[in-house]
Amino acid sequence: MRGVGGCPTRLGAARLPRLRYHEPMGIDLNCDLGESFGHWRLGDDAALLSVVSSANVACGFHAGDPRVMRATVAAAREAGVAVGAHPGYRDLRGFGRVPMQLPPDAVRDDVLYQLGALAAIADAEDVRLAHVKPHGALYNSMVRDPELALAIAEAVAEFDATLPMMVLAGSAAERALDAAGVPVLREGFLDRAYLPDGELAPRGTPGAVHTDPERVAAQALSLARDGRVRAGDGSELRLRVDTLCIHGDTPSAVALARRVREALEGAGVRVERPPEALRRGGARTLRGAGDAGDDGPERGAPPDDRDT
Amino acid sequence: MRGVGGCPTRLGAARLPRLRYHEPMGIDLNCDLGESFGHWRLGDDAALLSVVSSANVACGFHAGDPRVMRATVAAAREAGVAVGAHPGYRDLRGFGRVPMQLPPDAVRDDVLYQLGALAAIADAEDVRLAHVKPHGALYNSMVRDPELALAIAEAVAEFDATLPMMVLAGSAAERALDAAGVPVLREGFLDRAYLPDGELAPRGTPGAVHTDPERVAAQALSLARDGRVRAGDGSELRLRVDTLCIHGDTPSAVALARRVREALEGAGVRVERPPEALRRGGARTLRGAGDAGDDGPERGAPPDDRDT
Amino acid sequence: MRGVGGCPTRLGAARLPRLRYHEPMGIDLNCDLGESFGHWRLGDDAALLSVVSSANVACGFHAGDPRVMRATVAAAREAGVAVGAHPGYRDLRGFGRVPMQLPPDAVRDDVLYQLGALAAIADAEDVRLAHVKPHGALYNSMVRDPELALAIAEAVAEFDATLPMMVLAGSAAERALDAAGVPVLREGFLDRAYLPDGELAPRGTPGAVHTDPERVAAQALSLARDGRVRAGDGSELRLRVDTLCIHGDTPSAVALARRVREALEGAGVRVERPPEALRRGGARTLRGAGDAGDDGPERGAPPDDRDT
Amino acid sequence: MRGVGGCPTRLGAARLPRLRYHEPMGIDLNCDLGESFGHWRLGDDAALLSVVSSANVACGFHAGDPRVMRATVAAAREAGVAVGAHPGYRDLRGFGRVPMQLPPDAVRDDVLYQLGALAAIADAEDVRLAHVKPHGALYNSMVRDPELALAIAEAVAEFDATLPMMVLAGSAAERALDAAGVPVLREGFLDRAYLPDGELAPRGTPGAVHTDPERVAAQALSLARDGRVRAGDGSELRLRVDTLCIHGDTPSAVALARRVREALEGAGVRVERPPEALRRGGARTLRGAGDAGDDGPERGAPPDDRDT
Repeated sequence: MRGVGGCPTRLGAARLPRLRYHEPMGIDLNCDLGESFGHWRLGDDAALLSVVSSANVACGFHAGDPRVMRATVAAAREAGVAVGAHPGYRDLRGFGRVPMQLPPDAVRDDVLYQLGALAAIADAEDVRLAHVKPHGALYNSMVRDPELALAIAEAVAEFDATLPMMVLAGSAAERALDAAGVPVLREGFLDRAYLPDGELAPRGTPGAVHTDPERVAAQALSLARDGRVRAGDGSELRLRVDTLCIHGDTPSAVALARRVREALEGAGVRVERPPEALRRGGARTLRGAGDAGDDGPERGAPPDDRDT
Repeated sequence: MRGVGGCPTRLGAARLPRLRYHEPMGIDLNCDLGESFGHWRLGDDAALLSVVSSANVACGFHAGDPRVMRATVAAAREAGVAVGAHPGYRDLRGFGRVPMQLPPDAVRDDVLYQLGALAAIADAEDVRLAHVKPHGALYNSMVRDPELALAIAEAVAEFDATLPMMVLAGSAAERALDAAGVPVLREGFLDRAYLPDGELAPRGTPGAVHTDPERVAAQALSLARDGRVRAGDGSELRLRVDTLCIHGDTPSAVALARRVREALEGAGVRVERPPEALRRGGARTLRGAGDAGDDGPERGAPPDDRDT
Repeated sequence: MRGVGGCPTRLGAARLPRLRYHEPMGIDLNCDLGESFGHWRLGDDAALLSVVSSANVACGFHAGDPRVMRATVAAAREAGVAVGAHPGYRDLRGFGRVPMQLPPDAVRDDVLYQLGALAAIADAEDVRLAHVKPHGALYNSMVRDPELALAIAEAVAEFDATLPMMVLAGSAAERALDAAGVPVLREGFLDRAYLPDGELAPRGTPGAVHTDPERVAAQALSLARDGRVRAGDGSELRLRVDTLCIHGDTPSAVALARRVREALEGAGVRVERPPEALRRGGARTLRGAGDAGDDGPERGAPPDDRDT
Repeated sequence: MRGVGGCPTRLGAARLPRLRYHEPMGIDLNCDLGESFGHWRLGDDAALLSVVSSANVACGFHAGDPRVMRATVAAAREAGVAVGAHPGYRDLRGFGRVPMQLPPDAVRDDVLYQLGALAAIADAEDVRLAHVKPHGALYNSMVRDPELALAIAEAVAEFDATLPMMVLAGSAAERALDAAGVPVLREGFLDRAYLPDGELAPRGTPGAVHTDPERVAAQALSLARDGRVRAGDGSELRLRVDTLCIHGDTPSAVALARRVREALEGAGVRVERPPEALRRGGARTLRGAGDAGDDGPERGAPPDDRDT
């Protein structure tokens, strides 16, 4: 979005058009926030809110109690940062990072519960939810498991079918959601190495995580401005991304996030929350896999917006 | 509603008028439902749904996981039973029955969280929440602690200021809520002995709990039709009640509930959910204690509806 | 134990000797107990304690709060039933039945925590733990994952290296534990169909669960007396089992368990807890995979007890 | 111990003897540790372990998961710091600081569960528990409620009757425990104002918490060396203390703790864990209130050690 046109059905399809509308360009920076719980503090939310344009707010299952949620939403509102729901697996001890093999309908109801809880708190703070991003192991599982992605999307659609989901750009989940008419925000990662097929190199493999701020900033700029990223084997991937993920739970996270924003703005890319227009593309009900038709006009830019 | 007129500012004010409108009379029967959790089952919800007119659905803090909540809401809808939120203290092990000295704003945010969670699930099942009834120790603490009652009411008002709260008829909490302009459903108890001041005799004191079905049915009828109940010392209390509480977690609960309903209907008292009209009385914001004015016309019957 | 000799290194190795020792034969019947939690009741523990010889007592992570644990241990002591620990994944909502991909050392410490907690409660009731049986998804994962089995065994050895672990007879986990010198109780299932390789047919596949009491009783007798069971394809498996698993959480569980015991005793097989002697075989420390030698003499019967 | 003689049956009994044995004097410094949970870190345990002589290790109910517990115990062992159990109310969100009105036998079983869990983990790290100190709201409730204190003591005695409990010096709980023959470590507070009756001034009242390091150090020295502390009204209290409480969860906690230790050592007071000898005084079973006799010889110094 922000100049991103129709949805490719295959990742890496040859010769995507270069984009020229929406000048100057914009990109969303999103970050997980509100991950304190009770007496435990986590992350420098105040500092991060001065850098990002979207906050993914924990909803109580992996982090975030109701007071933390409320304070986080209020702080995001004050900072002009969009608030999204960040539902996770029900596992405080594991911080939602432990894969759990739950039936899809249990995941759906767990997500719906969390969305409603956060939305009520946000509403009390005059904030409307702007997106949904699954957390941790739920996100990772979703990216590889279209059935799980659709179960989550069903919860989102039951709650508010115009609400976009953040999902790894170019993943199986993105395609499944797209085919089902779910509005998505395609997400790119700044500090992770990509595999040639568009997946992220698994943490723990050599070079999977970038720590050099300049490299991170360069990848951010390349993804945001050019829709390109170089994979670990040197090949170039083309990825349309709407939002870039900033990690907030490392000590140097804030400095890194500031460097990224500075690099983007220095190159003329505005950091801004996703446009409201995106929401209009939402279908009222999920389409079955069979009837996923042309949803181009409903989301993103029309074809003639592209510079071929 | 249900023949109940303007709101007394003091419990037991002398010579309340006998009511004659709303013929035939109606009364709401409410019951806690959806108190299963995960693999654990509790109560015979299906049977109770055939007896009561309002279901108080657990919201996950003391009982009720998202799947249980969803199934309960769907079953209530099928049975034509009104669905209310039944928020509790965050204590699964104690089933919300352990008094917890939480700061009022923590209670407020906990209640708001639970309301939002249930409402999202209810909405997915095409059900709109009809009331809020705090659970267990939270209810008991609220009844005696107007500050706590108002903290809960603040959460309810933030969520939907037209949503009525169930509260012990004649209690300090009822007066506090009333003074603040909160729509209330005044609740009577069938199987508990009353003290002369309108409080319930504490469980554990002799005669505090009625087990004889005929006595329970008689107290139900007396409360519903006459607005009277005889206290343990033989004195007569006058209590206006909108709803009667049916306990569901004892083995004989269903039989007892059926006997109550039969007795009510045999005496011409309809069992019916609270009228929608009640909601219109809701103020958009809570009033301070000082500006609690005349809200008579907004709820219940106008003065001239009464047979003096 | 019960006349069981050296451990086969491969399941289904040809020509295991027929056993003739320990006349009259004995077999342990084990059942999960103490799976209530707070206000929620589960299972008819009192009835089951009159049938089984070993109780696997939930330790608080998937079920069982401290009071439930204490009452269960006391009831088992009164019934003369051996008490074992039944640790599970930390997931009350999922009842420990949801697979969770935890690092092995996290599982180890979780198990150790649960063992200590139950042991302290048992000790207060003058009961000494007799075995450990992982619960639900933890058991199922362990059966297929020798690394996980060894992580659990490490916790058990840290707690009390003489304590035997129940494990699926003939499984990869049994072999791994055996090789590491861990005392095991080999477990057979009465109401589940076996695959030709000794695994259980997955629930949900046709014929995977036996419900006919006579069939269940016959499988129990065949396993206990003959060390044989017929797989779904008609082939005969030879499995040495020390204990048979009785499921307790279905309505007909008690009747089924009684039928099994009756069938066993009618055929001269005593139902009895595992002999204390088994514990003497426990190594003080786990052996590495490399030095797993001949542990035949340390556990079970000597070679010449076998009838070739 | 540490110059403390026989046990006064009433707080503030006139003319306690001045102590002169145990030269040079010693005092225990205790601190809550291991209060991280899952992904959340709390406190600078490593730094505090270099200052204190006793660590109160959270047991999982209010903080501390099994891995955190294990790491904390191992770190305490390396630092030569005594490890005690720090059981709390079951309330992660409230960090065990929310008063909960649980029945005494539920508290007893909850404490026993936590003791066993920590002891198993400690044993795996070759550490034996040295004391028990209830946490947060449980401690505060216990101090004022002898029945609760005895319920906790019953759990401790069931686990290991020689294990001393830390309790506010001069409190009703100290007297109740003493009368029941429970070995206690009398605790003094450095950074809290005392009331004339020996209770701590409630947090939130003016001057209730000392923040000036020199004042804190002076109170530590006065309590440790002289058994005296000046109450808020200027009167002097005489309190025999065995251990001083260091708070660890404020940013300046480590610096303050170091200043205290420096002041004590500069005045010739050794900081050292409680002597093992104390444990020998433990009764095997709790005495009833009626038979609480002379337990002087069993704990503390013999009468002739006192300088009258």
